[in-house]
Formats: sequence, structure tokens, C-alpha cells
Amino acid sequence: MRIDQRWYRTIWPSDEGVAVEIIDQTLLPHHFEIRRLSSLDDAADAIRTMKVRGAPLIGATAAYGICLAMGRDASDESLTRAEQTLAATRPTAVNLRWALAEMRTLLEPLTDVERARTAWARAATICDDDVEICRSIGEHGLALIRQASESKDGETVHVLTHCNAGWLATVDWGTALAPIYMAHDAGVAVHVWVDETRPRNQGASLTAFELGAHGVPHTLIVDNAGGHLMQKGLVDLCIVGTDRTSANGDVANKIGTYLKALAAHDNGVPFYVALPSTTIDWETTDGLTEIPIEERSPEEVTRVWGRTSDGATVDVAVTPESCPAFNPAFDVTPARLVTGLITERGVCAASWEGLSGQFPEQPGRESMT
Amino acid sequence: MRIDQRWYRTIWPSDEGVAVEIIDQTLLPHHFEIRRLSSLDDAADAIRTMKVRGAPLIGATAAYGICLAMGRDASDESLTRAEQTLAATRPTAVNLRWALAEMRTLLEPLTDVERARTAWARAATICDDDVEICRSIGEHGLALIRQASESKDGETVHVLTHCNAGWLATVDWGTALAPIYMAHDAGVAVHVWVDETRPRNQGASLTAFELGAHGVPHTLIVDNAGGHLMQKGLVDLCIVGTDRTSANGDVANKIGTYLKALAAHDNGVPFYVALPSTTIDWETTDGLTEIPIEERSPEEVTRVWGRTSDGATVDVAVTPESCPAFNPAFDVTPARLVTGLITERGVCAASWEGLSGQFPEQPGRESMT
Repeated sequence: MRIDQRWYRTIWPSDEGVAVEIIDQTLLPHHFEIRRLSSLDDAADAIRTMKVRGAPLIGATAAYGICLAMGRDASDESLTRAEQTLAATRPTAVNLRWALAEMRTLLEPLTDVERARTAWARAATICDDDVEICRSIGEHGLALIRQASESKDGETVHVLTHCNAGWLATVDWGTALAPIYMAHDAGVAVHVWVDETRPRNQGASLTAFELGAHGVPHTLIVDNAGGHLMQKGLVDLCIVGTDRTSANGDVANKIGTYLKALAAHDNGVPFYVALPSTTIDWETTDGLTEIPIEERSPEEVTRVWGRTSDGATVDVAVTPESCPAFNPAFDVTPARLVTGLITERGVCAASWEGLSGQFPEQPGRESMT
Repeated sequence: MRIDQRWYRTIWPSDEGVAVEIIDQTLLPHHFEIRRLSSLDDAADAIRTMKVRGAPLIGATAAYGICLAMGRDASDESLTRAEQTLAATRPTAVNLRWALAEMRTLLEPLTDVERARTAWARAATICDDDVEICRSIGEHGLALIRQASESKDGETVHVLTHCNAGWLATVDWGTALAPIYMAHDAGVAVHVWVDETRPRNQGASLTAFELGAHGVPHTLIVDNAGGHLMQKGLVDLCIVGTDRTSANGDVANKIGTYLKALAAHDNGVPFYVALPSTTIDWETTDGLTEIPIEERSPEEVTRVWGRTSDGATVDVAVTPESCPAFNPAFDVTPARLVTGLITERGVCAASWEGLSGQFPEQPGRESMT
């Protein structure tokens, strides 16, 4: 996507295959800085500290983490250590596991000398595939926005989104935001209600940044406000991303998604989840009990980072000293609250039937019912 | 309530009837400062800028605002001007209107020379009555917490609350927090999940401050987290306050309350609303369409105020420059999502039947159904 007339992906190889570069997302929107990752530990740290985040981008970064490890030591031990190190960075996004399994399946049969070159080539195709997948998601979601636009005679379609499932969460385009970019570019009047997304403010810092850079009309709201807007008829549809979708259509996404899905359901507002098939966990049949929910530092709740009036960036405590806090990073929205899943193959029901109908090549399993 | 061994109310007369003093709640939890209000404009400004907030305390401050006006000029014109000035400060809390109507009814028939003295006396009884009302709410709510405690064999009862409906929101005790203080003091094991309550962070700054000062176990969470906690069985009941309750039991309260009520309903968690009868708007029969919802400055969303590591307090921008924001301050939770209303007379259904049964002296009205 474009920032100041230059086109960026969120991750790209540099220095002819000895490093990759990323946009440091922990500094947005106040600073735009590129970081160079030149080792396995750099890649693991970038995921763990959320310099890169978003399920598809975590997967791509993990693939490059394997490349960086293979470039230094392509032994079996090195491959296993890299896989374990990267798998331990974040527990919820299943794309991480998927990308690591892809790399292992590909590299394990190879000799040490073949591994690094093959790894870099595969990581590049994972990225290219992600871009194509997101473009397809965008096209399928665009049809939904067009429908909404037609049903209100071309008046502005108001879409509510939570967290950041834009191009910063993927390699390019995004998942939930891809249909919005395409609608805007196609001349469909669209406006986005951007949930702030506490505690890390990915809405205020990343989604607002992305939409602003692309010129898409948007308005920031606190996470508390979406239900009220839906009660007042100010939201036409919701589109969010997901970090892991169970085979029965339950959706793990950034904490607070469940509350918006409840409000959408209560007000008859369609609630869509956009995802690449790499985000589907075919092994999980009950998202609520089976998907591990990451708990992050209480300091993400008690402190807020921002820009002072003189342009410095600082973090400030918003609580009394020593205030205890709890910080679960995701919640699970049950399939019954999801109107449809938007994948690279189209829109399907949030159910085993819906998902397996769209991806019949997945290994069969006993009935989910 | 107690802060550092000294007992405070939130508002009290000073200087023998020419001023009142308040705790400046915009500076909590980082600074504890007393402000002196010596004119109508001081009182109106204190309400408007939220130096005092919380429906019952807004009512009490408005009553003292009338006193301050009468002390300078007790004419009919002055009374009308004071009433209009104070009524215009904030639109949602009905206690403001109630207190102003009380003062007008009392003062209108009097001569100018009687008005100031009578006003000060009535404002004092409004405050004393509020304390007694909140104490009664606390006792009725305590019975609910005791029940919850008994049903789990004395294990800790986990109560989720939103915004601040503690003693800082009233003259003393609080509404939603009064039962919690009483349970804690009575030796019932209770722990509070404190919603941060963006955008003004009344949970992180006021509720956490209050509970910490009193020694009640509590944990701060972001507003997004409550639904997840309820899904995981970590919340035994919710208790919140309200700024206006319609005669049919709909509840206007701080933005985001509706989302928590939806989650409580979806997970079978009892959802109670604590209120003095002064918060009931007997004229309003459909909260969703009739209660005016205040819109506040977008800067409350785009900027966050806090304490830096060197102890200074600053506000920081959390968005890209010029990010548009929308800031509705309240939402309405429909009566169907409310398990019960806790008033000074007991617990009743959130309905016309429930409320009018408890307050039969209210002027009769046609059936609400």
C-alpha cells in the first residue's frame, strides 16, 4: 500500500537474502521506521514485541525467521530450534503454526546446502500468496459492500471494524480492510467506524493511520461506543479479522470482538469475519474451549503511549500506583453470532458445513454436529 | 469515605455559607486537590468540566449552585438564570433536573431575604439524604452479594463494574460500589473487575482509586475484556450505576454499559443497576428513543492524560494528527437486559410495574404496556 507516494509491503527481503526488513508497528502512528531483522532472534523478538502483528504477517515473519536461521546453520537441530523459538512467541494466531509446518515439510527432506535457498524462495511465495489471497478476500467483501450500498441507494455505507486487520496485519491489502479499500477505490461511498482497540490501540494507531494514508473516510470511536452506534442505526455492517477460526466457525480475534458481535446480533447488523484459509484451524472444533488465549503484560493496560504537544513520545500511567490489571489479548466469538466468513474463495457460513464446503480438499472429519 | 485516615464527602459547605468545596475529580488518581466553588459560574463549570461527576453528585452540586447564586442575588431573575445555567451543563443525568426543580419549588414562594438561608439548608438535606439513600442501596445490594457468596460456599464473589458509581459519584458511599464496600467491611470475600471506561478512564482513575484507598481487592481490565471474562465464568454478577432510568426500566449509563449487559445476558450473569430514586425519570417511557445522549469533545478520545515516569502529568495524542473522532458519553441498556434495579427501597424488576410498585407515591400514569 502507499505511504507518501511510495509503495510498501509490511515485510520484504533485503541485502540479497541475509536479512528482511519490516515497518516497526510499535512506533506507529507517531514514527515511521524500518527495522532490519538479520537473525532468528530478531524475527522472534519482532513477533513477540509486536513490531509485526496480525495473523497473516506473523505467519510470513515466522517463515522468514526460519530463513534467517537456515542462513546461519541449516542443520536439523537448527531447524528444530528455530521452529520451537518461533512457535513460542505468540500462542493464538494459527498462521504461525501453519507457516512453521509449511517450512518444516519443505525443508526436512533437503540437504543442509539446499535448505537456505529453498526457505527464502518459499517465504517469498508465502508472501506473494498472502497478497493474492487478501486481494481475493477484498473482491468477495467488495460485493457485500456494493450490496449494502445498493440497498441504501448509494448513500454512504458505514462499516465498523475492530483492531487492525488492514494491510499492516498482512503482507499487503489486509483482510477486513481489503474490501473497504476496494470499495473506496471503486467509487462506492464508504466510511469506517474505527474501534480504538484498547489496550494496544491498534485501531487508533494502525487502522486510523492506514485509512488516513489511503484517504478513506473514517472516524475513531472508543471500544465502548459501537453498541450505541448500532442501536442508533449508524452501522450498516461490521467486518473484522481473526487470528484463528475453528473448524466449526468460532472466531478468535482481538479482545472485544465478541462484544461487538453481540451488539450486531442484537441490532440486526450483519457481522462478517474476513480471513485467509491459513487462519482456519481444522483441528479445533470448539473455539471457546480449545483456542488458547494469550495473556499479555498488565502494563499494556495501566500505561498508554502517545505523543506530547511538543512532539515527544512518552508513555504515561493512567491508574493509581500499583493498580493490578489483567490483560487477555483475544476473545472468541461463537459462530452463532457471525453472519458469514469472507475467505479467498468467497463468503460462506460460519460452520463446519460452510468451511468444508469451501475447502473440500481438507482432510475429512466426523460430523461436527 | 476514608482517604489517608481522613473522612471525606465529595462536596461540603465552607466559609460559613459563602462557598462549597469539592475534590477535583479531573486530577485523580494522580493529584488529590480540593477546589473552592464560590459562585454560580464556579458550580456550573465544575459540573461541565467534570470536576464533579456522577448523577447524584451532579444533583447535589447543582443544589449548591443555586445557593451560591442566591447568596449574591436572590431575585426571581437570578433564580431563573441560575436554574437555566445549571440545567445547560450536562443533558443526560436527570438528578440535575430533579435537584433544580426541588430548589425552585422550595424557593419560588419565599421572599428574597429568606431564599439564601433556605437554599443552603435544603442543599444540606439533599446531601444528607443522598448519603442515607446510598447506604440503603448498599444494604439491599449487600444481600445480593451475600447470596452469591453463599451459593459458592463463601468463595470470593467477583463483581464487574463499569465507570465509577462509587462514593466519588455521589455524596458518600456510592451506588454500585456501596454494596461492595459493605460486603468487604462485613467480611464477605469480594473482588471487583474494574472496567477502564474509556474515554475518560473513570474506572482506571476513580474506581481503582476508591477501591484501593478502602482496601477492596480489585483488578483493572480494558473495556473490551468483560465479555471474555464472563464466557470463562470469572464474573459472578455485574453492578453498575445509571445517570437516568426511564419509567419502563431502561437505563442510561456511561457508554459501553450496554455491551456488558449483552454479554451478561448471553452468559447468564446477573446484571444489576443501582440507583437512588432521584435518578428515575418518571416522564420518560422509552429510554432508547427519549433519553438525550450527551456528545463530548473528540479530544477525549484522541488524547489520554496520565503520569510520566518522573511524576509529571501530561496528555498525549494516541492517533495520527487530525484523526476525526466521535464521542457519545452514554448509552441506553434496554430493560430486558437488566436483572434488577437496586434502589433505596430494595430490589425490583426493571419495568414500570417494578418501579411503580416500589414508588407508589409517584403520580399515576397510563399503563406502560
